[in-house]
Amino acid sequence: MTEFAPVEQQLQLLRRGAADLVDEKQLAEKLERSRKSGKPLTIKTGFDPTAPDLHLGHTVLLRKMRHFQELGHRVIFLIGDFTGMIGDPTGKKATRPQLTKEQVLENSETYKRQVFGILDPEVTVIEYNSRWLDELGAHGMVKLAGSYTLARMMERDDFRTRYESHQPISLHEMLYPLVQGYDSIALEADVELGGHDQIFNLLVGRDLMRERGMEPQVVLTVPLLVGTDGTDKMSKSLGNAIAVEDSATEMFGRTMSIPDALMWDWLLLLTDTPEGEIAQLRQQVESGENPKAVKQRLARSIVEGYWSAEDATKAQEEFDRVFSRGGRPQDIESVVHSGPRLLTAVLAETGLASSKSEARRLVQQGAVSIDDERVSDPFHQVPMRDSAYLFKVGKRRFLEITLQEPEDAS
Amino acid sequence: MTEFAPVEQQLQLLRRGAADLVDEKQLAEKLERSRKSGKPLTIKTGFDPTAPDLHLGHTVLLRKMRHFQELGHRVIFLIGDFTGMIGDPTGKKATRPQLTKEQVLENSETYKRQVFGILDPEVTVIEYNSRWLDELGAHGMVKLAGSYTLARMMERDDFRTRYESHQPISLHEMLYPLVQGYDSIALEADVELGGHDQIFNLLVGRDLMRERGMEPQVVLTVPLLVGTDGTDKMSKSLGNAIAVEDSATEMFGRTMSIPDALMWDWLLLLTDTPEGEIAQLRQQVESGENPKAVKQRLARSIVEGYWSAEDATKAQEEFDRVFSRGGRPQDIESVVHSGPRLLTAVLAETGLASSKSEARRLVQQGAVSIDDERVSDPFHQVPMRDSAYLFKVGKRRFLEITLQEPEDAS
Repeated sequence: MTEFAPVEQQLQLLRRGAADLVDEKQLAEKLERSRKSGKPLTIKTGFDPTAPDLHLGHTVLLRKMRHFQELGHRVIFLIGDFTGMIGDPTGKKATRPQLTKEQVLENSETYKRQVFGILDPEVTVIEYNSRWLDELGAHGMVKLAGSYTLARMMERDDFRTRYESHQPISLHEMLYPLVQGYDSIALEADVELGGHDQIFNLLVGRDLMRERGMEPQVVLTVPLLVGTDGTDKMSKSLGNAIAVEDSATEMFGRTMSIPDALMWDWLLLLTDTPEGEIAQLRQQVESGENPKAVKQRLARSIVEGYWSAEDATKAQEEFDRVFSRGGRPQDIESVVHSGPRLLTAVLAETGLASSKSEARRLVQQGAVSIDDERVSDPFHQVPMRDSAYLFKVGKRRFLEITLQEPEDAS
Repeated sequence: MTEFAPVEQQLQLLRRGAADLVDEKQLAEKLERSRKSGKPLTIKTGFDPTAPDLHLGHTVLLRKMRHFQELGHRVIFLIGDFTGMIGDPTGKKATRPQLTKEQVLENSETYKRQVFGILDPEVTVIEYNSRWLDELGAHGMVKLAGSYTLARMMERDDFRTRYESHQPISLHEMLYPLVQGYDSIALEADVELGGHDQIFNLLVGRDLMRERGMEPQVVLTVPLLVGTDGTDKMSKSLGNAIAVEDSATEMFGRTMSIPDALMWDWLLLLTDTPEGEIAQLRQQVESGENPKAVKQRLARSIVEGYWSAEDATKAQEEFDRVFSRGGRPQDIESVVHSGPRLLTAVLAETGLASSKSEARRLVQQGAVSIDDERVSDPFHQVPMRDSAYLFKVGKRRFLEITLQEPEDAS
């Protein structure tokens, strides 16, 4: 019989950084029962089966899953292949491409590689929801739809907003929350974890379970992590993300770039630093201590999680060399660019900016220099020359670019 | 190769009494093509699999199906067993009871018995939509849902009205029009027939076919028949219906009871009387001729359709005897009543009224007499006696009722 920690001790870890907990009393009861029976709770977290490229924003959720694992509970990593294999039937802009069975399996391999830095591969249960949803049949799907009303579905903010502003809502979008809820029924989930933006869907699962006479799942969400810019939710397309597969140097440097005010959330959500200690550090900084030491500690802690203590030390040395002393990084990547020579196009196509419009903004903000000369005209054409240019964007992004005439299309 | 009548001639019959035809030009093209290729059109009409008790209101649609059969086209009588076997998942008031496979088959036998008075049993194709919908699977159902938006679904008046007045709409109700549309795809329907209240669902089928690159079906609806009261849509529960299994006498008598103004619609929708002749008769009545002869002709024609010319003659004689000369019908049914002796309860429980509230209305209107004495107190208790009472409701409903003490429940 498994020995579980006292309920209050478990709750303390599980509450850490949570955005919603519906509700704590029920969670305490479930933990109590599990402790008495020696039976772990079943924790469900769903993931899209689209090609994953995880960044630190995703790890907030993964870390919460790990908390449950550390406490001895059964954590299910649920891959939503059923919906992934449907794709977006509206055919609009291929935002949700239809995946084959092979692609789903391939993506789940990539997932495993990326998430097992955080989750314990020995005890993580991987499931695919097609297992029970394929069996459900057309009948079962219509019945499932019958268990919810339009009005309740429209309680979801984005549905209501889109409907009222005459944005199209495809009917199948209203089925997805039900499908997700059905997953909870199939898995007999005790707890479902998700991002705070998923709260509506998670509560639908609670409703459906209650309607079937099951004990409803507890819903626990984590906040959306703010990205390196300190304003927007971390997202690859906004260029404010740190990928879990980024190099140690990059992770360290980009963490050091976040606004001081963001450090406390990151310490809470991305490290194991005890909450009391975070409060203490914060008080010290607020009473005038230099925040740099705290940020270094945060950056080291993040790098150590994905690399090693040694890598973290190297990354820190590199960071100090380059930025603290105004030098250049040791390894600067080189690329050959053969596209248009308009500055914004060069920045976007080499990846120094995420888009031409971001490139324009960066140039206008004075963040771009070529061979140490700041360029402020976004319509600047980079002249051809044989030797490479050294591009610098912001304080830390360097790239050697060699221009090449575009090949003749004929 | 089948010989089809000229298109204009076919159109003339098909247009007769139609409420909507979307659209006539396309129907003409389909008929033209069918005439050239010798290939009949596929005509689809869907029916609920719930226990059928057909009345003349239903026959308007069945007669339109027969028109297509007379012209040599392929008419499919589609039984919606898929949805019937789902039932109403909301569980509200069992309005749509869940049927078993056996019940559906039993009901379809009852259907056949009732509809083959109108449709040609030799050429009617009977289909069950579970054949293709079971195969669709949960995937297919979600995809199907993805082919329509909420906004388009809310173009349906009753959905919009219910939503705006905060009446619940179960999500599966929004799937039913799509399922019906999918039936048209599966059957490759050229034309779908339905009641005018079905127009939205039928047009959804048209949309879905177009989206799949198929030639969309033509939609042809027939009006809802007004019942014997001359005001409301014919419906068993309103007590203004004539069932196709009613006796010849009842059919004849109840047809004679309709308001004169309703005769023209009934002639158009329930008989084969040529449209020109109907117009002529109408003109004669409007210029002062007695409408009784026309109504007799209508009543005869209806009775002949379900019984025989001989039965029609007998029914007419009986009618004349009873009502024209104030007599009583030859055969009066007898029942034994052992329930409560409150007048309204007796009327409702013996079927003389469709409900206690209708019974109360009838009594208050002075339409009820017992042994030739009018009774106007709805709270009248019918005294016990050994001999039977003769109950009369309205001009034509007679029933001999023998009262019996209710049996002891112990």
